[in-house]
Amino acid sequence: MQFPSPVSVKWIASFINAELVGNTTGEATGLNEIHSVRSGDIVFVDHPKYYDKCINSDASFIIINKKADVPEGKALLITDEPFEAYLKLVRHFRPFTASDKMVSDTAIIGEGSVIMPNVFVGNNVRIGKNCIIHPSVSIYDNCSIGNDVVIHSGCVIGGDAFYFNTKKNREVWFKKMESCGRVIIEDNVEIGSNCTIDRGVSGDTKIGKGSKLDNLIHIAHEVEVGRNCLIAAQVGIAGSTVLGDGVTIWGQAGLNKTLAIGNNAVILAKSGVGENIPDGKVYFGTPADEALKKQKELVWIRRIPEMWEKIKELTAAKQS
Amino acid sequence: MQFPSPVSVKWIASFINAELVGNTTGEATGLNEIHSVRSGDIVFVDHPKYYDKCINSDASFIIINKKADVPEGKALLITDEPFEAYLKLVRHFRPFTASDKMVSDTAIIGEGSVIMPNVFVGNNVRIGKNCIIHPSVSIYDNCSIGNDVVIHSGCVIGGDAFYFNTKKNREVWFKKMESCGRVIIEDNVEIGSNCTIDRGVSGDTKIGKGSKLDNLIHIAHEVEVGRNCLIAAQVGIAGSTVLGDGVTIWGQAGLNKTLAIGNNAVILAKSGVGENIPDGKVYFGTPADEALKKQKELVWIRRIPEMWEKIKELTAAKQS
Amino acid sequence: MQFPSPVSVKWIASFINAELVGNTTGEATGLNEIHSVRSGDIVFVDHPKYYDKCINSDASFIIINKKADVPEGKALLITDEPFEAYLKLVRHFRPFTASDKMVSDTAIIGEGSVIMPNVFVGNNVRIGKNCIIHPSVSIYDNCSIGNDVVIHSGCVIGGDAFYFNTKKNREVWFKKMESCGRVIIEDNVEIGSNCTIDRGVSGDTKIGKGSKLDNLIHIAHEVEVGRNCLIAAQVGIAGSTVLGDGVTIWGQAGLNKTLAIGNNAVILAKSGVGENIPDGKVYFGTPADEALKKQKELVWIRRIPEMWEKIKELTAAKQS
Repeated sequence: MQFPSPVSVKWIASFINAELVGNTTGEATGLNEIHSVRSGDIVFVDHPKYYDKCINSDASFIIINKKADVPEGKALLITDEPFEAYLKLVRHFRPFTASDKMVSDTAIIGEGSVIMPNVFVGNNVRIGKNCIIHPSVSIYDNCSIGNDVVIHSGCVIGGDAFYFNTKKNREVWFKKMESCGRVIIEDNVEIGSNCTIDRGVSGDTKIGKGSKLDNLIHIAHEVEVGRNCLIAAQVGIAGSTVLGDGVTIWGQAGLNKTLAIGNNAVILAKSGVGENIPDGKVYFGTPADEALKKQKELVWIRRIPEMWEKIKELTAAKQS
Repeated sequence: MQFPSPVSVKWIASFINAELVGNTTGEATGLNEIHSVRSGDIVFVDHPKYYDKCINSDASFIIINKKADVPEGKALLITDEPFEAYLKLVRHFRPFTASDKMVSDTAIIGEGSVIMPNVFVGNNVRIGKNCIIHPSVSIYDNCSIGNDVVIHSGCVIGGDAFYFNTKKNREVWFKKMESCGRVIIEDNVEIGSNCTIDRGVSGDTKIGKGSKLDNLIHIAHEVEVGRNCLIAAQVGIAGSTVLGDGVTIWGQAGLNKTLAIGNNAVILAKSGVGENIPDGKVYFGTPADEALKKQKELVWIRRIPEMWEKIKELTAAKQS
Repeated sequence: MQFPSPVSVKWIASFINAELVGNTTGEATGLNEIHSVRSGDIVFVDHPKYYDKCINSDASFIIINKKADVPEGKALLITDEPFEAYLKLVRHFRPFTASDKMVSDTAIIGEGSVIMPNVFVGNNVRIGKNCIIHPSVSIYDNCSIGNDVVIHSGCVIGGDAFYFNTKKNREVWFKKMESCGRVIIEDNVEIGSNCTIDRGVSGDTKIGKGSKLDNLIHIAHEVEVGRNCLIAAQVGIAGSTVLGDGVTIWGQAGLNKTLAIGNNAVILAKSGVGENIPDGKVYFGTPADEALKKQKELVWIRRIPEMWEKIKELTAAKQS
């Protein structure tokens, strides 16, 4: 997430009760977890394995549980519990607020847009012009929806990322990485019934202009769907995977996390994709591979009995 | 869709600003896209490849972008933009109307039926007797539900078809084929939580008497489910596929579009069905085939290492 | 289900119009179908094949359609229609009640818990402390939710079991086994958007402490999820399957009914599990098997063309 305006790192250090080392007069422009950091951001790290990576990332301010060398212009915020400090900041800058209003007073809804009954629109949500938001859609805080967007009934836009700090040697195995990201839906997108599009952990989940989604689709945190993509029913896309433009995904396919799917790639129905797909390629199967290759495999499997017969003949001939 | 009463084709031509050629005194009884046309219907065609098919279909009135010969009794409505003309008619005869009512004044709800909180019931919806519509169900305009039907929470009945006029050489790749069809649910059907049943593009989507659907099922536009079918959770059925009576589909199976599934056919869990299934057959796998055949394939695959050993032996014997 | 207090079997017999044989002075403590019976329970049986099993089960009172010997201390309730009698009792003790209240007067909601707009909370529901129930969640009657639980938008907790008395030689093939069970969600569970968790037919469906569920997951009747389980999006688990603690299930996997999944087992994405999994094992594929074994199979399949070449060489050598 980016802050509405820069925040003094001195104030941050005092708020999370951390020792400030390095550039003590800097101002932070955002707060992100390591996969989404930009220059000006605060990040956190609590495992020695990732100290170097975080200190040398684009982040300018590192919440950390050990004193370390810090590059010129950056600062460390040293505290015993970096994860808890990060959560405290998330909760402060993007607090969850209980509400009994179906449409928040701080939501902005463009001219010509229709909000049907039983819709929930959270705080600071922006909806563009000439949209239709069908009944029982829920749009969580801070999400942004373009013009001429149609969202069918039962969709949940901006649910929390499924993302946990996991340690199996403590009482609570899964500590939730509370989400402060958003969902951004561009112009002329249509989303079918009962889809779920999670917001980013700290970055944004995006659906590009002109893309069309069928029903019961799952789009995880920080996924980016390009422009003019077509996604059929019951597809699932895991966290941080990025689709190019013009991608087609047929029904019930699943994509693993952090993949890159090239422009105009096609993923056939029911495929389970575990690797990147180059531009324009057609993939099929689980694990998915080029469709032609997979289809040949299916033909070969059907020839096994014939091979077995030939081996039997050869063995008999040898023994005779 | 069928019109409530016949409409003069002269009025239609003037409304869409088309030149009328042929039977200029006819009356249209309905409006359908090519896959659902009946005699008396208006249809549209904008690609030379499909001119003949549409002119010689059951449709009586053809919106077309070129003058052509027209059979006795039929008429052409000639306009540069047949697709736009069709959409104009759809929007006129089945307009989307914004509403702040949870149950439309024009909905008819039978005796003994219970509508729970947060349910949306659109215009001209009919619900029979002794139904239970659980919380947060959304029923779009014009859908029809029989007697003794139970619909569990979060279901969306009558969402728009996922159906686009696609041309990748223009700015807007996907122009939505706006739906004017309905969903028809017959008596004694039960539908589990968070299912999505889309209405037809111009025809009807049907769930036959006594059929039972589990949770999170996707039924696309113009699908017809027969009587006494059993469909387990997370199944998806693509557009215009027709199931006979007594069909059983186990969890997470997917069916491609425009298939015919025979009476009492069984589709095992997770199957991906891409071809028609005859009456009474049991199918499995992706792509699905007769279950026995597929199971034999799995056995053969497990024998490959043994075959490899035999080939090694034969090769060694040859070389010795 | 357990009764709030013991019920005289004499009253039961008279209520369902059955002949009472055996221990006529007993008191029933619950009503369960055969898979969930405990001592003190009423059960029903209508097929001779299952007479012995039911009479000798833990149940104390057997609704049956034939006179039979009954063990000391137990009683038979003899009636022509045991299934109808069972349904009559279910409807009496756990009646469905129409409501226009979004939160029932009999629901108990703990301190610090937030109920967002458009949520439905049924009769006798208990929600613990510091929970967040996001918009458009539906919680059916009698469900119980612990402390610090988060349920995201569109979830349906406590929908009816997908469970039918099926006979294909009568007019109505599927007679619904009306559910009287509950859903029990323990402390510190988080459930993603648009999940469906069905209540038990007569027992309880349970989600163990600290477990985390992603979006669009289906959990069927009487499933038990252990503690600290992690279940990714679009997973489906069929009826009465039991997961140990620390189980991980990746996206779009499906589990058949009545399985036992061991502690810390891992099920990889898209797998279709049809058998029990021992503690700590990693499974993959459809039908799922140990992941290493499955991965080897995939390698072997890719070697078939090479085998084919070798067989051709051997055959040529033989013939020369």
